[in-house]
Amino acid sequence: MANFAIMGFGTVGSGVAEVLRMNGASIAEKLGERLTLKYILDVRDLSASPYASLVVKDFALLESDPELDVVVESIGGAKVAYEFTRRALLAGKHVVTSNKELVAAHGRELLEIARDKNVNYLFEASVGGGIPVLRPLFQCLAGNQIQEIAGILNGTTNYILTRMVEGGVPFDEALREAQEKGYAEANPAADIEGLDAGRKICILSDLAWGGEVRPEAISVRGISGLSLEDVDVARTLGCRIKLLGRALRLEDGRTAAYVAPHLVPESSPLSGVDGVFNAVMIRGNAVGDVMLYGRGAGDLPTASAVMGDVLDALAHREKRRSLGWSRDAVLADLESELPMRWYIRGEGPARITGAMTAREARALAGQAAALLPVLE
Amino acid sequence: MANFAIMGFGTVGSGVAEVLRMNGASIAEKLGERLTLKYILDVRDLSASPYASLVVKDFALLESDPELDVVVESIGGAKVAYEFTRRALLAGKHVVTSNKELVAAHGRELLEIARDKNVNYLFEASVGGGIPVLRPLFQCLAGNQIQEIAGILNGTTNYILTRMVEGGVPFDEALREAQEKGYAEANPAADIEGLDAGRKICILSDLAWGGEVRPEAISVRGISGLSLEDVDVARTLGCRIKLLGRALRLEDGRTAAYVAPHLVPESSPLSGVDGVFNAVMIRGNAVGDVMLYGRGAGDLPTASAVMGDVLDALAHREKRRSLGWSRDAVLADLESELPMRWYIRGEGPARITGAMTAREARALAGQAAALLPVLE
Repeated sequence: MANFAIMGFGTVGSGVAEVLRMNGASIAEKLGERLTLKYILDVRDLSASPYASLVVKDFALLESDPELDVVVESIGGAKVAYEFTRRALLAGKHVVTSNKELVAAHGRELLEIARDKNVNYLFEASVGGGIPVLRPLFQCLAGNQIQEIAGILNGTTNYILTRMVEGGVPFDEALREAQEKGYAEANPAADIEGLDAGRKICILSDLAWGGEVRPEAISVRGISGLSLEDVDVARTLGCRIKLLGRALRLEDGRTAAYVAPHLVPESSPLSGVDGVFNAVMIRGNAVGDVMLYGRGAGDLPTASAVMGDVLDALAHREKRRSLGWSRDAVLADLESELPMRWYIRGEGPARITGAMTAREARALAGQAAALLPVLE
Repeated sequence: MANFAIMGFGTVGSGVAEVLRMNGASIAEKLGERLTLKYILDVRDLSASPYASLVVKDFALLESDPELDVVVESIGGAKVAYEFTRRALLAGKHVVTSNKELVAAHGRELLEIARDKNVNYLFEASVGGGIPVLRPLFQCLAGNQIQEIAGILNGTTNYILTRMVEGGVPFDEALREAQEKGYAEANPAADIEGLDAGRKICILSDLAWGGEVRPEAISVRGISGLSLEDVDVARTLGCRIKLLGRALRLEDGRTAAYVAPHLVPESSPLSGVDGVFNAVMIRGNAVGDVMLYGRGAGDLPTASAVMGDVLDALAHREKRRSLGWSRDAVLADLESELPMRWYIRGEGPARITGAMTAREARALAGQAAALLPVLE
């Protein structure tokens, strides 16, 4: 029998319990043993929950239980979650999480602790929710030199953009709709301003090239400045506007990573990814372009990825997954080193330029009302 | 140092050697040791090849070399490939393949031998070429009960259909184009008549539900009977025609699997998968719909998947991947048990019916010129 605990019984944590309830029999069959939820660590009053008998308030119970194999961290944030993850790994527990903020900020250190203790720290759910992304990237595509990653990494902003494109709804109204439907938080800044996508593109870059990219070191531009006019003009140019996290490997081995709204040509499969769906395009030098698509958020999709990691951690109890990044990435200067094509809307008809750097594009655009990169 | 051999130095085999040449340094970094190509087994005259010094004609050399860790089988077919795979596994070698014919026909037995000998038999490249499909299915989505799989699994037929749709080119001419471009073989029957897609949907079904589906036991219908008229009419109904392999799990645990051209609504991301690209949609009861997209064939994409498996086999040298199917699937009767909507074109305007079985649809259609299922 294998035992696991859930720390933080919010959307994701309760989703994990629900997935075990729904699929416990098939999970046991695949695992070859029964998987038991032994503890739920949460400070809230869960006495009315059907799981009330599992609820504990003291982390030390988990830390000191020699029969606890895996801890799911779904607390969120990088404070308590960081402390408990550290201690769980040091206590020899495998840890699985969906917490992109923590992985992007402290993943390197936590993975080093995991290596020292010969346990797994797995975080498939931190990027793309339920979509298999990280494991395909570091495992299935391991024979490739990864050249580029571009992804629609945030469902809230993609929902808003889809409403602007399909429904002609202005940004503010689309945001209000997203909040009413529960897709956007009351304080939507982390989504709207691109911070959430920024954390995710950093994790993808860390894994793809083994060098850490700090979220605070990359350029992040969200969608709050987008106008309906650009959305419409983009369509007449055969493009859709999508908020992309993008990371590239330059020929000299340096990394470029950023988040910005892009014009995505309709010939790219990313252009058709609508609503709360996410998708990640990975370009490898052998495989070419691969795209992974699905639900990037939500309780059950995210819990699906968490549960996949729990099973993988248990399958690698003795010999941990080799996974991590151990040096600083060397970043290219986005302003002057990354030529791309640009959409410029100013006086006269909107247009798409030839390849040039951001600095050159800005000089050319002058006082233009809009300047956006175009995905190749 | 890890050593591997390539059996069969055709398109895939030489692609694997090329991927090692291109990416040997990054592969060694990920693996933590150097990966060396030690033998190429091929009966052809390869004396002019840059790999001539590695070429051997006698399989017994591989079988008896205690320093050989992994064998890549890219011979194709189910005769010599079967014999050499069996013997390699029995000799304690890990075997990696792209050979869908062999996996679909003898995978169950070969996986049992692999289990007995504690080695890996891996075949990610057998479905979807370079696209990560099998590992996401059995690993990342292991927390789900898989409900349905639907895939564009054959690049040749998808190229032909795309030319018919986009270019208004009749079937025969599109086939000739595909042959000229090297996408279709001189004898294209296995592709055109759906046999190749049939093998692949069987492998997906085997892995998803653990029960073996024999390729000869499923209904397979190809694209040779499709007319340009249906392609055009489908568009006016908001659909594209795609050749899909489809597998479902019924509520009672039985399996339905088949291959047929479908009308795919434009709202489905499968409808936009064009040319030689493949895509597989997997529906899980927690994750919802996930789609995996990329190049389904070609030397380097397929070699990318093979190399990913080689590295995974080496990472699981002591503790093999738990993977396989060990019972017969119980198949539902497609004719009478699987209600779906149907496209009927006969006298009067073409239309899409409500949900009904194939038998009911056939009775309703009578002498109609076309009767095709519609993907939900």
